[in-house]
This record gives sequence, C-alpha cells and structure tokens, in this order.
Amino acid sequence: MDQHTVSRGDEPDLHVRTAGPTDAPAVLFVHGYSQSSLCWRGQLRSSLAERYRLVAMDLRGHGDSEKPTTGYRDSAVWADDVRAVADSLGCDRFALVGWSYGSLVALDYLTTHGTDRVRGANLVGLVAGIGTDRTTEWLGERYLDLFPELVSTDAETAVDTLDRFVGLCFHGEPSPAERYLLLGLNAAAPPRVRDAMRDRSVSHLDVLDELSIPVLLSHGAHDAVVDAAAARAAADRLPDATLSIYPDAGHTPFREATERFDRELRAFLDELD
Amino acid sequence: MDQHTVSRGDEPDLHVRTAGPTDAPAVLFVHGYSQSSLCWRGQLRSSLAERYRLVAMDLRGHGDSEKPTTGYRDSAVWADDVRAVADSLGCDRFALVGWSYGSLVALDYLTTHGTDRVRGANLVGLVAGIGTDRTTEWLGERYLDLFPELVSTDAETAVDTLDRFVGLCFHGEPSPAERYLLLGLNAAAPPRVRDAMRDRSVSHLDVLDELSIPVLLSHGAHDAVVDAAAARAAADRLPDATLSIYPDAGHTPFREATERFDRELRAFLDELD
Repeated sequence: MDQHTVSRGDEPDLHVRTAGPTDAPAVLFVHGYSQSSLCWRGQLRSSLAERYRLVAMDLRGHGDSEKPTTGYRDSAVWADDVRAVADSLGCDRFALVGWSYGSLVALDYLTTHGTDRVRGANLVGLVAGIGTDRTTEWLGERYLDLFPELVSTDAETAVDTLDRFVGLCFHGEPSPAERYLLLGLNAAAPPRVRDAMRDRSVSHLDVLDELSIPVLLSHGAHDAVVDAAAARAAADRLPDATLSIYPDAGHTPFREATERFDRELRAFLDELD
Repeated sequence: MDQHTVSRGDEPDLHVRTAGPTDAPAVLFVHGYSQSSLCWRGQLRSSLAERYRLVAMDLRGHGDSEKPTTGYRDSAVWADDVRAVADSLGCDRFALVGWSYGSLVALDYLTTHGTDRVRGANLVGLVAGIGTDRTTEWLGERYLDLFPELVSTDAETAVDTLDRFVGLCFHGEPSPAERYLLLGLNAAAPPRVRDAMRDRSVSHLDVLDELSIPVLLSHGAHDAVVDAAAARAAADRLPDATLSIYPDAGHTPFREATERFDRELRAFLDELD
C-alpha cells in the first residue's frame, strides 16, 4: 500500500492509501462513520490490485486526514472531498465503493457532480439518507441506543461505546486484533466529528430512481446497524441494480465474507464500460 | 490463541490468552502501561508455542480484564494478580516476561512472593521503579512531555496523546495496522487507570542485587520511553544477568525485531532449570 496526501489550499489535507497499477481503471473506496481507509486493507492487499488502481481515502475528520471543525454537514463538501481525491490521483473516470456513511458520501458525490466520471457504484451496508424518518427507520435498535454516548467527549465512555459499535458491525465475533484495530480507527475520529456528521437531514432516495450507472448493493442479512431492507428498497428503485445479500454477515461483508465480496466486486468491475 | 477468565470472588476478573501445550513449561507474559496481552500476539503465534505454554494476561484495568477503581498503586495487589493467573492456569513454576510497566509488575511479584516459583525473568524495556528520582531520570524527555495529557479524560486529547505514545514506542514507523491496533489497546485502558498506575513511588533497584534467578534484559538502543541506561544499570547489579541491546529497536524489541527477540527468549528459556 502506498500513501498520499491530497492538499488543496484552505481545505483540509486528505490522506489516501493506494494499491495497484497507476494506469489501471480506478476504484475509489469510501469508508464508514468513524472508521478509516484501513477498513479496506483486505481489498487493497487482494488480487483486485492486479487489475485495478485501488484508491482508499480517509474522510475529513478520520484516520490520517486533517480534522477541521467544519464541513461535516454538507453534501457538496463531501462531494468535493471525493472529487479532490480523484483529481489528485489522476482518476478521470472511476468506480465508487462506499460503505455505510461512505455510501451516503458516494451519493453526495453523484447528486452534486453527476455520473459523468463514475463507471459504477458498489454500495455496501447502504445509507441512502440521514436524519429523515424514512431512512432512520432502517437503523438498528441497538445502534440507535448507542447514539447519545457515541458522541460523548468523556474518554472512557467514548471508548466503551465505540467498542460496542465495533461489536455491532459484525454478525459473529471479530478477532481480537480486528476488534482493537477497528477500535483504534474509531477512536481516532473525535466525538465532535461523529456529532457533526449525524447533525444532517438529507435523503438521496429520489436520486436512486434516476441513477443511470450500474449499482451493486452488498448487504449482510444480519446487519445490526442498517437493516437489509434499506438495500432491498434501493434495489427496487434503481434502474440498474444488482442486490447481493450475505446470509452470514453483519455490517461488514467485506471483512466477514472477504472472498465472496472481492469476487463479486471484481465481477462487477469487469463488466463496467 | 485460547482465552480464559480468571475469577476470584471480590477481586476483578482477569482475562488471559494462551498458546502451546498445557503440560509444557509455562511462560507468563506481562504487558506494559496502557497496553494489553495482544502486544504479545507475535510470540503467542510463534514457534515458541511448540515447546512452551505461553500465558499472556491482561492486567487489571486493561484489555478485556475488569477495570476496578482500586488496586493500581500497590505492589502486593499486582503481585497477587500475577499469582492468581499462574494458579488458575496451573503454572506451578514459570518464567516471567515483563515489558516496561510489566517488568515493574514482574518485580512486584518477585518482591512480594519471592523466586520459589519463578525459573527466570526476561525484562524488556525495564522499569525497575516508579515515582523516584533515580528511576524517573531514565524516562525519555518526549515521554515525560506526554504525562499531563496521557491522563486527560477528554476523548480527543486522550486519543491524540495515546497516538503520540504509540509512535514513541517504535524507533521507526509502525505499520498503519500495528499503529491503530496499539491505539485501540491503549484507548481501552481508561485515563483513571493510567493516572492511578503512575501515582506510586516504589523502587525495586535494591531487590536486583539479591535476585537469584537468571535474568535476560532486552532493551532497544533507541528506546525513547525508557533509556537503555536503565537496563545497563540493572545488569551491573543483578547476580545472573544477560544484557541484550537491540541496535535498531525502540521500546518494543519484541515487535520491531521479533525474530531476534523470539530466538533469544527461546535460548534463555531452554537454559533454565
């Protein structure tokens, strides 16, 4: 894996990990709420890197990207962050892979900048909106229970709650090393960032009806963060959707069923124009 | 790796990871300040487990052990926690491997319970005392600079400081996965635990003069947490010491120079009565 810093004057520096040949078709990975590009380390180290240029960004406020005080509530800001990464890495056209909040950011991008540069999208553990009745009803009860303490500024409360959040992301038990790595990633996103990211009200559900690119929806049947009903509803609306439900996975099919996830992503990418 | 819980009535449950044959000679690993048994995952997965019963405990307040409000300031409490693990796992005699604060706990044990059950000790990044002028002068300046914020109860400050602490533990750059795993481990120890553990004044330097068991001192030449002078001073006092300085390692020779560390530990263990 290589590392890059995307610099843009007044906007925060963004940290990016890449793998694969620079002249191969690009795939841009966007991680979820309070996580980082390291979530995709399995994919970046896989044989996907033989055929594709894999680009995994740290969202602002996360991982090794800068953590400004603003920019977490606005679709256009998220969209511009994604575009800045694509521009900086020389990705004229690319496929988008967005997980959870990262799928919301992918839709922020598509809503703001359109589909011209996007060959297709793999939306994993789909979050098509936030802060609306329709989209909130897809969130898991045990996840909603964590909301107040997920943004606690008290170190012990924050870490205990993030540990429960990491646990909720898996259908089974993550390995101890996986669990503590994800706890470290999650803890690296400050509470104020988690708070601001949730303080939005936006739905991209209507956008799905007109989305002209191929979309692969990957969702764990046991997802306790976002119910698989969210992916089913999106599949019904999207003009060109493939729905892939993982019977034995929770919110992280790319970690819990890596082989199948990589195989399906590769097949999806291979078919794109 | 197997997992165990050591339960003892009123005392906190302690979490233990093990590897290797249950009837092999036992080696008890004690991790450092704000870390956990997962620090030893390289050793537990190594060929050491073919010949030895490897037992890595989570100290109280750390990892998956219980995190009571008391018991962090008293040599006898730490010593009894170690003994409880040895008793529970059926280790009549054992070798002790203690890293950093874990070497202090190993000396807490030897001071409190003597050497009867201990075949030898490998002290890594030695901390022979805490809160005394003599022992504090061996601590690195950049480590001392972190002290006020290492015990911050503010989530963002705590994590930023722990991230710098993790960086200080390595001479080079840890891999991103190593760094975030260690950040997760460190964050899992609450600030109040880090605070209480430092609120002690004890020196075991005099104990070293009479310590009748073989001791292997492993220390990184570039250790920025505890200067290698601490190990050299101990080697001068101990009746039966081997001093091993790692020219290219910092505070974690067992992570930064794993092959040499495992080889030397194995040779040391093979020679014990």
